[in-house]
Amino acid sequence: MRFVEDKILESGVIVNDDILKVDSFLNHQIDTEFALRIGKEFADSFGEFNKVLTIETSGVAFAITTAMAKGNCPIVFAKKSKSAIVDALSCYHADIKSFTRGVVSDVTVNKKYLNNGDKVLIVDDFLAEGNAALGLISIARQAGAEIVGVCAVINKIFQGGEKKINDLGIKVVSGARISSIENGDLKFE
Amino acid sequence: MRFVEDKILESGVIVNDDILKVDSFLNHQIDTEFALRIGKEFADSFGEFNKVLTIETSGVAFAITTAMAKGNCPIVFAKKSKSAIVDALSCYHADIKSFTRGVVSDVTVNKKYLNNGDKVLIVDDFLAEGNAALGLISIARQAGAEIVGVCAVINKIFQGGEKKINDLGIKVVSGARISSIENGDLKFE
Repeated sequence: MRFVEDKILESGVIVNDDILKVDSFLNHQIDTEFALRIGKEFADSFGEFNKVLTIETSGVAFAITTAMAKGNCPIVFAKKSKSAIVDALSCYHADIKSFTRGVVSDVTVNKKYLNNGDKVLIVDDFLAEGNAALGLISIARQAGAEIVGVCAVINKIFQGGEKKINDLGIKVVSGARISSIENGDLKFE
Repeated sequence: MRFVEDKILESGVIVNDDILKVDSFLNHQIDTEFALRIGKEFADSFGEFNKVLTIETSGVAFAITTAMAKGNCPIVFAKKSKSAIVDALSCYHADIKSFTRGVVSDVTVNKKYLNNGDKVLIVDDFLAEGNAALGLISIARQAGAEIVGVCAVINKIFQGGEKKINDLGIKVVSGARISSIENGDLKFE
C-alpha cells in the first residue's frame, strides 16, 4: 500500500539492518487517521471473519480499526503477562519470542474468547521472523478456530516470517513489504 | 452512562470486594461498538484537546476511539517495559503500581511525543486507587503539557482515585461510577 510506504519513508528511522523504528505513528504515538485507513484496507482484503485476534500492545489499535471497518466484530488481544485474576488452565498458550527484545513470553488467551467455528483474522503491527503470528495461529488452532488470514502493517519479508505463514497455507496481507534494509537504505518489494 | 452500567451488570464478574472482572468486553476481548460509543462520549465531554494519552494495554482501544471521535488527533501510550531500541534519557518517567498485580512499573513516554503546549486528555479502562492516572498526569506535567481531563470507562470511586485527581483540579469523566462492591453486590452512584 503506497500510503504505508510513504509514511515509513517520511517518519521511520532505520536503527540498524534489522530494526526500523516507527514509534512516531505506529507503536508509541499512533496516527489515528493512518490506523483507520489501514483497518479499512485489512478488512476489505478478506471475506468473512467474526473476530480479530492480536497481541498486546501495538497490535490493539490496528485490530480495533480493522474490526470497526468490518462492522460489529469484537477483538481479542493475547496477553504477555499473567493477571492476578486469570487462572492458567482456563487459557490457550503459546511461547512467543520477541524479535526486538529477545525475551520469550508465555502468551495466553482465555478459552472463553476463541471458539470452534470462529473465523479469525490475525492483525499485528510488525511481521519479522513470524514468532508472534505463529504463536497466535497456534492459539487459534488450539481453539479449533478457522484462520482467515494474517495482516501486518509492516512486513520485513527478508526476516522470513511471511514465508513460514504462507507455508501453512495462510494468506498474508501487509501495509508495506520491505525486501531489505542495508547500510541505512530501505527497499520495498 | 447508562449503557456502561448495563454492560457491567450484564457481563461483569465480581471476583471479590475489590476486583470486577470485565474481560469479555473491556480488557481482553473488546466489544468494538461499545468502544466506539465510549470514545464518542469521552470526546464530547471535553473542549479542545490535541492528544490522547493512555497506558498499555487496555487503555489503547478506548484512547483510539476517543481520538477518532475528536477527529485528527494522535494517541500516545505510555510503556510499561523497556524496548531494546529506546534509551532512558529520552523519556519522561513515572513509577506506577498496578492495582490488580501489585507490581511497580517504570512507565515511560518518549519526550518527542508530549510537548509544552499540548492539550492532553488522559484515557484509561479503569480508575481505582488512581495510580495509573496520577502517573500519566505526572508524565504530562513533566512535558509542560496542559491536562484537559481524565476519562475512565469504569471508575471504582470507593478506592479513592477520583478524589486524588479532583484534588489536583482535574475533571474526571467516567463511563460508570461504582460506589461499592460488597458481598457480591455492586452499587452504582
